[in-house]
Amino acid sequence: MSDSTPLRKLSPVAFNRVKISDAFWAPRMAVNREVTLAAQYRQLQDTGRIEALSLQWKPGEEPKPHIFWESDIAKWVEAASYSLATHPDPELEALLDQVIARIASAQQEDGYLNVFFTVVEPENRFKFLSWAHELYCAGHLMEAAVAHYQATGKRTLLDVMTRYADHIDSVFGPGKRSGAPGHEEIELALYKLYKVTGESRYLRLSRFFIDQRGQDPSVFDVERQYGGQTPPRREYYQDHLPVREQSEAVGHAVRATYLYSGMADIAGEMGDQSLLAACERIWDDLTLRKMYLTGGIGSTRDNEGFTEAYDLPNDTAYAETCAAIGLVFWAQRMLRLSGDGRYADVMERALYNGVISGVSLDGARFFYVNPLESTGSHHREDWFGCACCPPNIARLIASLGGYAYSESATDLYVHLYIQGEASAEVAGQSVGVSQWTNYPWDGAIRLMVAPQRPARFGLNLRIPAWCPDARLLVDGEEVELDGNVSRGYVRIEREWTGRETVQLTLAMPVERLEAHPAVRQDAGRVALQRGPMVYCLEQADNAAPLQSIVLPRTVALDSHFEPDLLGGVVVVTAEGLIDDDSGWEGRLYRLADTKTKPFRVRAVPYCVWDNREAGQMLVWMRGG
Amino acid sequence: MSDSTPLRKLSPVAFNRVKISDAFWAPRMAVNREVTLAAQYRQLQDTGRIEALSLQWKPGEEPKPHIFWESDIAKWVEAASYSLATHPDPELEALLDQVIARIASAQQEDGYLNVFFTVVEPENRFKFLSWAHELYCAGHLMEAAVAHYQATGKRTLLDVMTRYADHIDSVFGPGKRSGAPGHEEIELALYKLYKVTGESRYLRLSRFFIDQRGQDPSVFDVERQYGGQTPPRREYYQDHLPVREQSEAVGHAVRATYLYSGMADIAGEMGDQSLLAACERIWDDLTLRKMYLTGGIGSTRDNEGFTEAYDLPNDTAYAETCAAIGLVFWAQRMLRLSGDGRYADVMERALYNGVISGVSLDGARFFYVNPLESTGSHHREDWFGCACCPPNIARLIASLGGYAYSESATDLYVHLYIQGEASAEVAGQSVGVSQWTNYPWDGAIRLMVAPQRPARFGLNLRIPAWCPDARLLVDGEEVELDGNVSRGYVRIEREWTGRETVQLTLAMPVERLEAHPAVRQDAGRVALQRGPMVYCLEQADNAAPLQSIVLPRTVALDSHFEPDLLGGVVVVTAEGLIDDDSGWEGRLYRLADTKTKPFRVRAVPYCVWDNREAGQMLVWMRGG
Repeated sequence: MSDSTPLRKLSPVAFNRVKISDAFWAPRMAVNREVTLAAQYRQLQDTGRIEALSLQWKPGEEPKPHIFWESDIAKWVEAASYSLATHPDPELEALLDQVIARIASAQQEDGYLNVFFTVVEPENRFKFLSWAHELYCAGHLMEAAVAHYQATGKRTLLDVMTRYADHIDSVFGPGKRSGAPGHEEIELALYKLYKVTGESRYLRLSRFFIDQRGQDPSVFDVERQYGGQTPPRREYYQDHLPVREQSEAVGHAVRATYLYSGMADIAGEMGDQSLLAACERIWDDLTLRKMYLTGGIGSTRDNEGFTEAYDLPNDTAYAETCAAIGLVFWAQRMLRLSGDGRYADVMERALYNGVISGVSLDGARFFYVNPLESTGSHHREDWFGCACCPPNIARLIASLGGYAYSESATDLYVHLYIQGEASAEVAGQSVGVSQWTNYPWDGAIRLMVAPQRPARFGLNLRIPAWCPDARLLVDGEEVELDGNVSRGYVRIEREWTGRETVQLTLAMPVERLEAHPAVRQDAGRVALQRGPMVYCLEQADNAAPLQSIVLPRTVALDSHFEPDLLGGVVVVTAEGLIDDDSGWEGRLYRLADTKTKPFRVRAVPYCVWDNREAGQMLVWMRGG
Repeated sequence: MSDSTPLRKLSPVAFNRVKISDAFWAPRMAVNREVTLAAQYRQLQDTGRIEALSLQWKPGEEPKPHIFWESDIAKWVEAASYSLATHPDPELEALLDQVIARIASAQQEDGYLNVFFTVVEPENRFKFLSWAHELYCAGHLMEAAVAHYQATGKRTLLDVMTRYADHIDSVFGPGKRSGAPGHEEIELALYKLYKVTGESRYLRLSRFFIDQRGQDPSVFDVERQYGGQTPPRREYYQDHLPVREQSEAVGHAVRATYLYSGMADIAGEMGDQSLLAACERIWDDLTLRKMYLTGGIGSTRDNEGFTEAYDLPNDTAYAETCAAIGLVFWAQRMLRLSGDGRYADVMERALYNGVISGVSLDGARFFYVNPLESTGSHHREDWFGCACCPPNIARLIASLGGYAYSESATDLYVHLYIQGEASAEVAGQSVGVSQWTNYPWDGAIRLMVAPQRPARFGLNLRIPAWCPDARLLVDGEEVELDGNVSRGYVRIEREWTGRETVQLTLAMPVERLEAHPAVRQDAGRVALQRGPMVYCLEQADNAAPLQSIVLPRTVALDSHFEPDLLGGVVVVTAEGLIDDDSGWEGRLYRLADTKTKPFRVRAVPYCVWDNREAGQMLVWMRGG
């Protein structure tokens, strides 16, 4: 174990110390509490996931427990726990107690806990890590246990999961069994468990699993001789190289981002520079060559993951909701280690676009796949056989506050501008923060920081990379930003009394963006962004084939807020052009002589598409 | 059986009465004879297909005969036979005799002939028509038998196949078993067998099979109860509606075009107007909504076939070589029934582009899939496990002469301009035709028609739809074309003595084409065509990412012949534009401010792409 100093520069202000009261997230969080959690619990019941915990399944019975069922329950428990922390609800708390008791009842004498490998294939316990999802399920249950403990103070699930973690630790490790999870997740979960219990064995076990990848021969190879499954390419589960030698984002995108998150956790805690350097190299590869404008990642359904650099098809994009969430997890960890705003920029991009698109405004329907172009046949669904995305987005929304602020001994950081309040620990005391803003629709933000007693510390405000012009006033006095923004943040160090008013104004013009010329699918195309929001065309607003619409270089772009549209959004309009579609009778091809005529273009935020009548959707429009 | 008058207006001048001596096809035919036929015969041997005819296979042995193996042998026999007709070759003829003897030896007492259902699953003979390919193999063997008989006069294979046809006719038909082939082919083959034998039972059996499709319940339904296979959607094999009620090209594209070809045969022979009307409706749907510019058809790998109208993705296009060949078959039949040049236009488009792209210039490598855009990873292969395409293109090239001319009692038609000679039956006598031209590289064509004795008849010359300006001289005297071109042909009726010289000049400017605005994948894009040839960009000629190249409206397009390039082709050049790709370090997206600079664009005929070093390829370029 490394004795190096931890690399961590800042710590997130935890979800249970942040209150959100804005017009964008607060309604989403309310729907998440009031609709999503209940609907998902019904799904867990109706599909047999909850009942399976009774371990009463007998061969031949349907439904047969599946290898990843507990992970769905776990993410729901985690989401419900986060919700309780900010919105106490005795009924939900009692239901959680019940579910946790059922989980506990499925634990074996030795601490092992997995329904499938207890009742369906007990002979295969820990035998086929490459596909069995045992350690993946264990990881999600650990995350749920930590969340439940933090939210309620109860140790019921935490005790179950430390017992299971101890069991896993007794099986795997140096001098014990080698092996790694086929689907990463336990790495970051063991780190969380370590953080709340202080048990350093969990930290070491996490690093052990991380370093098991990419060995020669692969730790999965021995399984292949008798697993009866076709092994994927080693890149699929990031087993192609030792992680410290990796430089590219490869394979299954959710597996990848969960691994990278765990790597960042361990790098930070153990001062592990080679692990951090790998994270930084992979981060550049992912965000500069393999990320959609929406923060979605994963270019193909084939491996649910990455392909070649700059291959970003829009209509066949996979961009799984879980992968965008995984990117948020990883971004937050990189931000913690560096205090660098480029990580917050990506985190914000994913949150406001490719993550939140994953759930309908009514909280009842979910995207697994988030394409950037649709012919009108792609829609959100109630649930999925492989149901990872719905409870994943539920837990993210319920814990959103945890991504807004960070604290350190000397500094307070504001990463996300969301109206509400928080309580941070800075300069040895509790410091209240209040934000008033209509972000993301408006760039005017008013902040107050209120230490219990006047204290000198740095207030760091993020200046997003998308913002072409920011202005800052403290108590009405302009603070010069030119030259004072370092790695994405302006730092105001002074004695704060609690009476100062900070006013940050981020200009939010509608911007016409282009993609790197190596992205062949976006060549000659432009996308619209305003503030953090990526826009799209929907047929509901544009009565024309969307591919016929052109947004020339000279087009004037306007925006206005529409309170009654899609929960209240800023709409972008422009006087664009459209191909004249006359004279095509009896022809499929002809001499090019396209004439255009004016067309009023109307774009809505990408994250709210497919909440109205079905129709085409398009992010990357012809640039003319 | 209908007693109506046949609808046929013209008959093709058969392959064995046409000699080709041009610079485009003749070298392809020579390579086909000298390289392809031998290489394919080796494949038939090496893969066990020939040996399987001995019926010695025993359970557990590898290779296990496959349900469609005979079809590959059959198409090779057919190709070799066509080749013999124009280029006698005693060695090849002897080899053919041997192979035919082996085929004959596999025939059962009752006439049945299928290796798989004789040695592997004899209990399933004619049981699972939906997937068994028995009738499909039978059809290909019938086509081979007819070709061999026409080329050599030998009845060896013909007798085998009439015995098998008689057996099939004893099993299937009104009052006998119902059923239809899961993969159409036997319909058009029975028609050919009927034409050479005069046996009208074959004609009726063909129509029976055609009308078995789309019944309620489906003729395939009973099989589904015990076939052990997942039934495809009924559209997959055109079983969704009775064929006479069909109006759309659906399902597997090769299955579809073989069916439509058979429908056209029967419609023509039996004067079956409702069948013809269905063909015409489906033709319009296919050629006006579902055909690539190259004559390729089939938009997706999923069903190897058709999707929605106007869905024509370029990079993921399937456009199977066999499907383009099937389209040629069908086009020729529709042309025969109508004398309408629009069918010849499509036939020519497919032949010069999406068909002939299927084989490398050296005759040894084949495309199964013919996309219109490639990142550089798609290449021709020696052979395929499912090897339908290589022998299919071999038989088409070997019989190409059969598509050039048609004859009737009163008229001679020239559909394709290919240097060479032919002998037609017109006005009750043999009429020689000679063409001198460098088509498709040059639009100047000189023709002479030489009846044995002077006779009055109509000479019909096709004026292709792609041609913006044609000029015709007969013995140096201009024939006015304006108003004299009817359904794609100009007709010159006069007394022909054999001394007249006909000079047709088809202008071949390079044209900049656009696709129907509903084709979202081509929106804002243009393609280049010159004469019948569709052009593409290859990286070998254009050292830049092809998506960065723009061909604006005002671009001047030039062309010149390069004798040493790709067997001698006309190259198209233009002073286009290319995006300036500077200033992208550290960015994947940015404010759109693309600057362009001049770029010399060089395009080659699509049909010869991937004959040099690997690299990107693109047909539809940005139109600027």
